[in-house]
Amino acid sequence: MGFDSETGENKRDGRWNRRALQVSEAQRRVLAAAGRAASELTPLAECGGRRLAESLRATSDWPPFARAGLDGYAVRAADTALASPQAPATLRVTQAVAAGELALATVKPGTAARIMTGAAMPEGADAVVMLEQTAEASAGGEAAVLVKAVASPGQNVAPRGEEFRHGSLIAEAGALLTPGHVALLGTFGYAAVPVYKRPRVAVFATGSELLPVEAPLAPGRIRDSNSAMIAALVRQSGGEPLLCGTLPDEPGAVRKALADAASEADLIITTGGVSVGDYDAMAELLRELDEWKEPEEGAAEATSLASQWSFESHSSLASHSTFEIRSSSESSSLEADSPLEKGSAVNTQWVQAQQQGECMLLFNRVSMRPGSPTSAALINGRLVLALSGNPGACFVGFELFAGPSIRAMQREPSPVPASVTAVLGADFGKGSPHTRYVRSKLRFGKDGRVHADVLAFGKSSMMASLAESDGLAVIPSGSRGAAAGELVKVLLLKRIYS
Amino acid sequence: MGFDSETGENKRDGRWNRRALQVSEAQRRVLAAAGRAASELTPLAECGGRRLAESLRATSDWPPFARAGLDGYAVRAADTALASPQAPATLRVTQAVAAGELALATVKPGTAARIMTGAAMPEGADAVVMLEQTAEASAGGEAAVLVKAVASPGQNVAPRGEEFRHGSLIAEAGALLTPGHVALLGTFGYAAVPVYKRPRVAVFATGSELLPVEAPLAPGRIRDSNSAMIAALVRQSGGEPLLCGTLPDEPGAVRKALADAASEADLIITTGGVSVGDYDAMAELLRELDEWKEPEEGAAEATSLASQWSFESHSSLASHSTFEIRSSSESSSLEADSPLEKGSAVNTQWVQAQQQGECMLLFNRVSMRPGSPTSAALINGRLVLALSGNPGACFVGFELFAGPSIRAMQREPSPVPASVTAVLGADFGKGSPHTRYVRSKLRFGKDGRVHADVLAFGKSSMMASLAESDGLAVIPSGSRGAAAGELVKVLLLKRIYS
Repeated sequence: MGFDSETGENKRDGRWNRRALQVSEAQRRVLAAAGRAASELTPLAECGGRRLAESLRATSDWPPFARAGLDGYAVRAADTALASPQAPATLRVTQAVAAGELALATVKPGTAARIMTGAAMPEGADAVVMLEQTAEASAGGEAAVLVKAVASPGQNVAPRGEEFRHGSLIAEAGALLTPGHVALLGTFGYAAVPVYKRPRVAVFATGSELLPVEAPLAPGRIRDSNSAMIAALVRQSGGEPLLCGTLPDEPGAVRKALADAASEADLIITTGGVSVGDYDAMAELLRELDEWKEPEEGAAEATSLASQWSFESHSSLASHSTFEIRSSSESSSLEADSPLEKGSAVNTQWVQAQQQGECMLLFNRVSMRPGSPTSAALINGRLVLALSGNPGACFVGFELFAGPSIRAMQREPSPVPASVTAVLGADFGKGSPHTRYVRSKLRFGKDGRVHADVLAFGKSSMMASLAESDGLAVIPSGSRGAAAGELVKVLLLKRIYS
Repeated sequence: MGFDSETGENKRDGRWNRRALQVSEAQRRVLAAAGRAASELTPLAECGGRRLAESLRATSDWPPFARAGLDGYAVRAADTALASPQAPATLRVTQAVAAGELALATVKPGTAARIMTGAAMPEGADAVVMLEQTAEASAGGEAAVLVKAVASPGQNVAPRGEEFRHGSLIAEAGALLTPGHVALLGTFGYAAVPVYKRPRVAVFATGSELLPVEAPLAPGRIRDSNSAMIAALVRQSGGEPLLCGTLPDEPGAVRKALADAASEADLIITTGGVSVGDYDAMAELLRELDEWKEPEEGAAEATSLASQWSFESHSSLASHSTFEIRSSSESSSLEADSPLEKGSAVNTQWVQAQQQGECMLLFNRVSMRPGSPTSAALINGRLVLALSGNPGACFVGFELFAGPSIRAMQREPSPVPASVTAVLGADFGKGSPHTRYVRSKLRFGKDGRVHADVLAFGKSSMMASLAESDGLAVIPSGSRGAAAGELVKVLLLKRIYS
């Protein structure tokens, strides 16, 4: 592996002795440790965009009765068997049925009922003839209709249970509720809908160069733009951001701030301070965690460190119970809930650590560009994601770890970003020992193909490309980069697209 | 044109004498009549997903000063011209500069400054050498650094103004604010951001068969699922829904309910009652409007009808002023705001009618399937969209007209749904005299192509396919439909994807 241009790695002290995890393994650890949100009931008209906390089922057949599909006449098909424009069938009209009304009488042979869209089919009738195929008439002084075409049984009728049978599944727990789901839930009488609570996400920035956004610029200083960006990302991932300002400069104060946040929030995101600079407080704190507790070891030492932290919990996480020790058999049902945990025995420890309120380093280096110093830990059982302070790296770190965590807490079955295969728009020449996540804009060609245009201003420290990015092109590690016209994987950035 | 299976058209009375507009012309009328939202200031951390109400510009250069790109040593590149691992340049380290601090002294020839990522470059220095290319040393008892590689001027330095010049555009009015925009706005000190107010959208259902969602089913009746679905769609389009329940059955009461709503809301959406059934109150009201005022005529009669309606306005629309007559030259700037209005002289009349608080039918039939009876009118200058009551048709009508209206009110430059070209997944055999909008799910192939899979349960009356749809495949009018493997246009349904 070559040098590390982001951390300036030179192995001179412990700061640089970080083992880089592959992104997929880092995601696995984070998702296993993310915990699960509690549920709440929300009014139907407000549940769009939330995630369902229980699988819900049809409370009746749908349609609940055979319905007329359009405005016309309900007839017995057999009565029209010989009908044609030249020799229409004449049927006596005995009643009219509006939607919401019930027919007064059975449709007997030789009769018809005027019927409106959505009305329940009268007994006896088995087809609806559209108005255009009819003419009004009278038969012996009574209202009648001339039917000019043969009707087949079932024609223009939506039979009972055509779309849903009573008890069939509407949507599974974890589903993101679309407007179409809302319609179905309304149809089946779910006026209040069980959804997962929005995970509460504490957001801290670190860095003594940071000014509040409202402050005038000062020499050598910049405004904290990451906190507001993270707040927007948290909201668009289904969480509720709690902006906590800037972390203090010394590790003791950082530790206290994070422990306080751990008792209020379900997830903690910090930006900055994770690299190898002389003043990187987050990195120092995470090293300290690492010394107390190696991930591969048992949980015994961790609890002794955890006792330095505060314990009270106001969280919206369901399964979290600080320091309540569970056996691994008790925790196994939780483990099985998360698809990413399957087949990964080692993940049991992250689940246990989360449930037991432990402190534990999950990783402090990831094989990715930008954002290799991205780190994750449990502090009192709460997931802490320490993202890079460089806006580009912070953004990528959020998309790869924080967004997925917020979604996993709400049992989203596929919490990591979905990907598409796209045609790379231009050479991306730089090879790298790490996988690159390159800010791109997707374009849909007239040829039915998806194209990923790599955006300018894509350096880790740069912001100008963030606003336009709707994808991250994944350039595999290796010496050569990727060429224009190659097919590459592009992660879709999940956003409010409206 | 063949028969109309949705309206059962048979020309027996005025109900069926509706002229069908093409979708694009209907959209043009609706967007011209939609009015413009007022603006408000929102805190930076809450502006993600809103639309910018003013074009905003950089308030400084960015970066505001030359910044170190990584942790290392700030040097004069000329001092390293001969450096190599075998013969490193030895530079005296005179200071350390943390991010947020200013250097105490100029970097003079033969000296270097320890520097952290993001710190302002000291005067004199023109390059940063990463730590890996250095070693600590001492020179005459003073701290020094050995630089083992030639540094080029500007290396690892982000020059002042590299990304933005003071005054350059960050984003234009109407832009949907992404997390990346939020980062930029924070950087430039916009703690409060001018965004368009969310348009308030009154939602009514019609139909005496409708029960409230919380009611038990009753024979022949169904629950009102459209209102909640529309509420979810309104929210995901950037509006604020006001659920108004079910419209009464007679036109006089409908007129009063809509007039009351027109004084409170920026847009009114009704579902149901637009077809040719005997009890379709919305259709009757719209015919009445049509008789009062033909779109092609002047505005004189309309104001006399309008006087039947209530006038007080609590709306969040900026430019609306009931009955204040403006000359067409005064209204021309508004007209020019909407890209869809350009080159369409006739649209002036919709703009004027909106501004002057008029009542006017815009259309009551559109050449589309499902949803051909979809209608639009101005009532006291407020846009009323009368969507079909069939859930599928209601959904398509929303996507084609209501979503675009809500976005146009917030000056979204491209308010109608974006489209992609996709490979149709299966034959869609049915020809139609009208353009079909077919519920589809998009799939991204490993070959870089987009595929549109037509969903089952796609009839106008059906709901089961709504939840999964993320596109509407557009099947042009004609006799043959479209075949599997053909390239078709697919409208993207704009959603919260998080």
